[in-house]
Amino acid sequence: MTSNFKPSGTRLWDSLMEFSRIGGTAKGGNNRQTLTDLDGEARALLQRQAEAAGATLVLDRVGNMALTRPGRDPSRKPVAIGSHLDTQPTGGKFDGVLGVLVGLEILRALDEAGIETEAPVMLINWTNEEGARFSPPMMGSGAAMGIFPEAEVLAKTDSAGAVFGQELSRIGWAGAADPAALQDLEAYFEVHIEQGPQLEKLGLDIGIVTHALAQHWFEVTVTGENAHGGSVMAGRRDAMMGAAEMILAIEKAALAAGARATVGRLTVHPDSRNVVPDRVWFSLDTRHDDEHKLAALAEVLRAEAAAIGARRGVTVAVEDFWLSPATPFATTLVDRLRDSATARKIAYQEMPTAIGHDAVYCARRVPTVMVFTPCHGGISHNEAESITPEWAEAGLLVVADAALATAGVAKG
Amino acid sequence: MTSNFKPSGTRLWDSLMEFSRIGGTAKGGNNRQTLTDLDGEARALLQRQAEAAGATLVLDRVGNMALTRPGRDPSRKPVAIGSHLDTQPTGGKFDGVLGVLVGLEILRALDEAGIETEAPVMLINWTNEEGARFSPPMMGSGAAMGIFPEAEVLAKTDSAGAVFGQELSRIGWAGAADPAALQDLEAYFEVHIEQGPQLEKLGLDIGIVTHALAQHWFEVTVTGENAHGGSVMAGRRDAMMGAAEMILAIEKAALAAGARATVGRLTVHPDSRNVVPDRVWFSLDTRHDDEHKLAALAEVLRAEAAAIGARRGVTVAVEDFWLSPATPFATTLVDRLRDSATARKIAYQEMPTAIGHDAVYCARRVPTVMVFTPCHGGISHNEAESITPEWAEAGLLVVADAALATAGVAKG
Repeated sequence: MTSNFKPSGTRLWDSLMEFSRIGGTAKGGNNRQTLTDLDGEARALLQRQAEAAGATLVLDRVGNMALTRPGRDPSRKPVAIGSHLDTQPTGGKFDGVLGVLVGLEILRALDEAGIETEAPVMLINWTNEEGARFSPPMMGSGAAMGIFPEAEVLAKTDSAGAVFGQELSRIGWAGAADPAALQDLEAYFEVHIEQGPQLEKLGLDIGIVTHALAQHWFEVTVTGENAHGGSVMAGRRDAMMGAAEMILAIEKAALAAGARATVGRLTVHPDSRNVVPDRVWFSLDTRHDDEHKLAALAEVLRAEAAAIGARRGVTVAVEDFWLSPATPFATTLVDRLRDSATARKIAYQEMPTAIGHDAVYCARRVPTVMVFTPCHGGISHNEAESITPEWAEAGLLVVADAALATAGVAKG
Repeated sequence: MTSNFKPSGTRLWDSLMEFSRIGGTAKGGNNRQTLTDLDGEARALLQRQAEAAGATLVLDRVGNMALTRPGRDPSRKPVAIGSHLDTQPTGGKFDGVLGVLVGLEILRALDEAGIETEAPVMLINWTNEEGARFSPPMMGSGAAMGIFPEAEVLAKTDSAGAVFGQELSRIGWAGAADPAALQDLEAYFEVHIEQGPQLEKLGLDIGIVTHALAQHWFEVTVTGENAHGGSVMAGRRDAMMGAAEMILAIEKAALAAGARATVGRLTVHPDSRNVVPDRVWFSLDTRHDDEHKLAALAEVLRAEAAAIGARRGVTVAVEDFWLSPATPFATTLVDRLRDSATARKIAYQEMPTAIGHDAVYCARRVPTVMVFTPCHGGISHNEAESITPEWAEAGLLVVADAALATAGVAKG
């Protein structure tokens, strides 16, 4: 590395605090929802500061901001760092904005050191990652990577009936560039808070994210027959007992398959203390590193459902709800992050992301990798979300080194 | 039996239809809630008709109506037949009123045949069995049998703030007699629809109710720790999986104990598809013929809860919610019903009641028995509640014979 390249954890932290005042809440969180005036204000601040570090803005038709610092070699594609500035309505100060300001700090450190890179270095702010105001989430990166048609994105409405495309123009952030141009990157790096408690529990500085899990979500409905609580148990077709057996079968099968399974919601009909339920509905979220093993798990669960149903005289209907393939991140970039962490003596583990991020869509078209920083108690999407300056700095340094190694330094 | 004693199923049915017009609903049910003007109207009709059959009204301070036809022997206590005239807001035409009108028909048949009984024969209409407007249910019989203090009953309020005692006076049915005087009965008979599907399924005419089950209701709370649905399963403290295991353990233990167990309500926190629940709450209703075996079951369940909790790193708290002892009915009266059914060639089975009735409170102070008639599909507390004239008649004849045998016929 170039010895005068000194990305600053202090400057990053000051920058985080500066942005957190745009839409800051009384409880110390942030409410800076996508395509609001506050989003526009944060975007303008980002543009000013990135331009001051020598970058130029290209704005695309769904509002994604690409701020590029040129490289020496015109044939090289940009090495990008980014995330999102929008927040949940009662969001924190770090979810998204951390990854954007890590990119800004890298631009500043390059500028300060007067380093000319071989490839251009780009800072990206993706539009509407949160999906809180306009659903679904990750709309800007999804439009860029060909997941969502651009016209569909522009036509989305919020709960008050406001249209995405009109709101984008109203705040002055509708551009002319083709979002698909952002598929043309050499690499994409994203730093994000973990949104889980694991790194903090293990006392690690960062997580190097190697892949996104495959996910298969289901809805399960057990249908039996209701009966009075005073009736004899023989001959009952008790939907609750059938559901309990199915849930335990799910746990057993998921453990055997090395998967993760969660039953997070459950409703009962008719919901009376002394009535044997005739219908129990529950949600099921299954995840696995390997999508083939996840598909095999689904088959095991359908067979269990049929067997339990037959044995108990109930029906156990297992319906698909949502499916997302496994997404590997770029091994070259994972290697570079590992080298950088080792050189910096930053304690890390490799881990998957179980949560959607802009990087997960980017990974379908662009060599991509993510770094997680710990967050206190795993709390996020919450005004109480918090991290330490040291954690933010660890994420910054590892990505800064890896991004510079990827972009290459021009021989002066 | 006296050969001219001919209780009439036809007259009983006509009487049921006549009363069903007081508070009759468009859907063919009844809305004649306790202490409304319609309740007063039905009470007045009952008084007129019972008086026409030679009975005299004694009204007590909680509104229980005792209509007594005198016997020959002044030293004998009354033999009573009764139930309740009040209904649920969307109740049926038979729940309660059937038992009252069976008593009325017995008075009429005695009167018509000019039979002098040894003991007096009494028809009772208990106030507020349903508990729909003023809670709890079975208030009139409870006050009479010393379960509820009279002052407490009179002070109860409905959801609109109306006071029980004031409403009773307003409709003109507050009497002067001590409710506890109704503990002084030789026998109490009650005919009621089964409110379950068993008799209809078995093709029987009646059920002879030998006892009320002991009941022990619980609330179970499983507390773990929430985690993201993407987290690894090892180390999870999943309240849902703990609850599923506990529910299956309940089923197994209840079957082994010959008990009945129902988990009719369940709630999940935080109730999100991709969050491992930190808290699952469920209701548990257990019942058994034998209260000692029910108590032993509770101990087994508490031990299971502790074991599951320890194994899974969760707590499984099993809290008492409500307890009701087993209530045997009078074996002499059961014998008399059995003899009467056999003589009449009426197909029956002996069975417990799993549901509360005025008879269950009466049984604590007075030799008591019940007869169930089938009801279509087990449907009750519903405007669609229905029975056949033949079922009503079977209940009438069996109780009429047994009541007359108990009261005794004076040698003319």
